[in-house]
Amino acid sequence: MTDISKLGEFGLIDRLTKDIKPKNDSTIYGVGDDCAVLNYPDTRVLTTTDMLMEGVHFDLTYITMQQLGYKAAMVNLSDVFAMNGSPRQLLVSLAVDKRFDVESIDDFYTGLRQACDKWNVDIIGGDTTSSRTGLAISITCIGEAQEKDIVYRNGASETDIICVSGDLGAAYMGLQLLEREKNIFYEQYDALSQKVKKAEKSGDKDALKALSSEEEALRMYQPDFAGKEYIIDRQLRPEARGDIIAQLHEANIHPTAMMDISDGLSSEILHICNQSHCGCRIYENKIPIDYQTAVMAEELNMNVTTCALNGGEDYELLFTVPIGDHEKLNGMDNIKQIGYITKESLGKMLITRDGNEFELTAQGWNPLKH
Amino acid sequence: MTDISKLGEFGLIDRLTKDIKPKNDSTIYGVGDDCAVLNYPDTRVLTTTDMLMEGVHFDLTYITMQQLGYKAAMVNLSDVFAMNGSPRQLLVSLAVDKRFDVESIDDFYTGLRQACDKWNVDIIGGDTTSSRTGLAISITCIGEAQEKDIVYRNGASETDIICVSGDLGAAYMGLQLLEREKNIFYEQYDALSQKVKKAEKSGDKDALKALSSEEEALRMYQPDFAGKEYIIDRQLRPEARGDIIAQLHEANIHPTAMMDISDGLSSEILHICNQSHCGCRIYENKIPIDYQTAVMAEELNMNVTTCALNGGEDYELLFTVPIGDHEKLNGMDNIKQIGYITKESLGKMLITRDGNEFELTAQGWNPLKH
Repeated sequence: MTDISKLGEFGLIDRLTKDIKPKNDSTIYGVGDDCAVLNYPDTRVLTTTDMLMEGVHFDLTYITMQQLGYKAAMVNLSDVFAMNGSPRQLLVSLAVDKRFDVESIDDFYTGLRQACDKWNVDIIGGDTTSSRTGLAISITCIGEAQEKDIVYRNGASETDIICVSGDLGAAYMGLQLLEREKNIFYEQYDALSQKVKKAEKSGDKDALKALSSEEEALRMYQPDFAGKEYIIDRQLRPEARGDIIAQLHEANIHPTAMMDISDGLSSEILHICNQSHCGCRIYENKIPIDYQTAVMAEELNMNVTTCALNGGEDYELLFTVPIGDHEKLNGMDNIKQIGYITKESLGKMLITRDGNEFELTAQGWNPLKH
Repeated sequence: MTDISKLGEFGLIDRLTKDIKPKNDSTIYGVGDDCAVLNYPDTRVLTTTDMLMEGVHFDLTYITMQQLGYKAAMVNLSDVFAMNGSPRQLLVSLAVDKRFDVESIDDFYTGLRQACDKWNVDIIGGDTTSSRTGLAISITCIGEAQEKDIVYRNGASETDIICVSGDLGAAYMGLQLLEREKNIFYEQYDALSQKVKKAEKSGDKDALKALSSEEEALRMYQPDFAGKEYIIDRQLRPEARGDIIAQLHEANIHPTAMMDISDGLSSEILHICNQSHCGCRIYENKIPIDYQTAVMAEELNMNVTTCALNGGEDYELLFTVPIGDHEKLNGMDNIKQIGYITKESLGKMLITRDGNEFELTAQGWNPLKH
């Protein structure tokens, strides 16, 4: 393992960026100067930024550096797709503490580049520095769209159909599963540590030997996620739904409002309603939920609809389309119509399976509230 | 003082951004959607990003949140000026831990907005989230320039004159002074704590009372920086040199290479030489140094040239101009000609006051090396 101080800041940047070749015409000059230089003569420029902090947004106990790089990029690409745009460039800033070696940063960049390669995005710069404690990641993504194609959050109007891509709640269920396994691991580890202390006190060498191999086995232990791969993947390796944007474009459907679901469906539909000055009716039985999500919720004794409404990090698209597009949408497997837009005075309502109506509230994931 | 959790993420963002009005035609849509939307039909887009971590890049013992906001913005604007561009938009991400209240974030934004207002820059978005430990700041700045006006680091050639704006080493001397005063404070504080412990042990109430007022006085203590205001200001409230860019433009001088001095003159001139494939001769007696910088170096028993060469955070501009512009430069007070560009084979040399020659080395400030 290579100590970062061996390379220094510029050595590290060289290592990480030396074989990056720009793929977009809009990228005139990337890494290596005070600024990157871009060219957007005929389109609007879209910009978005996200910060991810260790211990708040990710836990290195169960996410690898490569997965983290992939996720950090995808989360930002998702915001550009959510404007009906195409992501083009990425700026990445990293602050690392002493635990991190050059290879772990390489792994992060591998994930970052896999995500960027998938959508032809250029890494054009950033900042690499040190942190006193914990890993901090900040990503800025730049994209483009024709003015007429851009979809804001404020364009929904009465009778529009509300749609979501994919399915909801899976990333949250994946997180619950990972947290459960982590807790089990630490409980076993603590119990073992107690036993070791006792054996050391009594000087029981045989017991110590047995405990040592037990510890070794625990360290190697990988939880069995068979039958739960999907929800784990949704948490650790989310995908930005550029494929949905392409599909809508091909079908000649232009959403009236759109955003990505990072904080939970409830929270996001309220943003669209508030900014569009309208109400909505969402039908519980229409919310798409994967089988594994439902099974996990059952296992954890949680209400699966609550998870789908309030669980974050799905990065699916939530959008509204004019009622006239209803037929076009019917043929699309991975887009579900879950309700419609109403007058503002009618409120933002959830219609449950048994026909009851509830006002939607944003209990979405909010790190500032913890 | 208002707890951040009272407002939540969206409440906080509303509070911080509600009265921000775009000032630039290129800002089509700012805060409030998945992305900001910009328009750059006739110019190149410049982008730069910087991350500032508490305990590494700043110390809240002596920088206020308002100064920090100002500095965080200026550092990024400086990178756009260093391309001979005009900064236009800023994205700001903040991760705060439990120590911070809403008012402290307000203060940060006040500083940020002072810097942005000074150069007509729009705050168009960002991310506000929580951190487990310490404050993390990430700023991305977007600017513009005509392709023909952009100055890279790689355009210097033989016989070009090397120039710097303002003076060097002051920010570093300011940092040394602040660090010294901080250490003095903590020594006094520790000594006092020892005395309090002793008095508590012996139950001496009169002594405890006296010590308590001594502690109160120490808490209120502000070091006297009379005669040292300039170097303190240079450290806590740096200015991006957009004024120099405007001056060069008026004088019709087009630098062949340029960058801002954030890591120290030595480190930066090596970047220009390496990227331009040339050498240089820098004259020690030409390096501009302020009187206060020299006095402080004397007081701390440091070599002032070493401080000017290797001290970071001056955010002055380092640039090269064709030899023919020599006359034009002579009239400019705040630009000094410190040397010239040579063939690569002649090395990167410092000529000392006594006529000796030394190879320049980058000992610049590098947090990854600590």
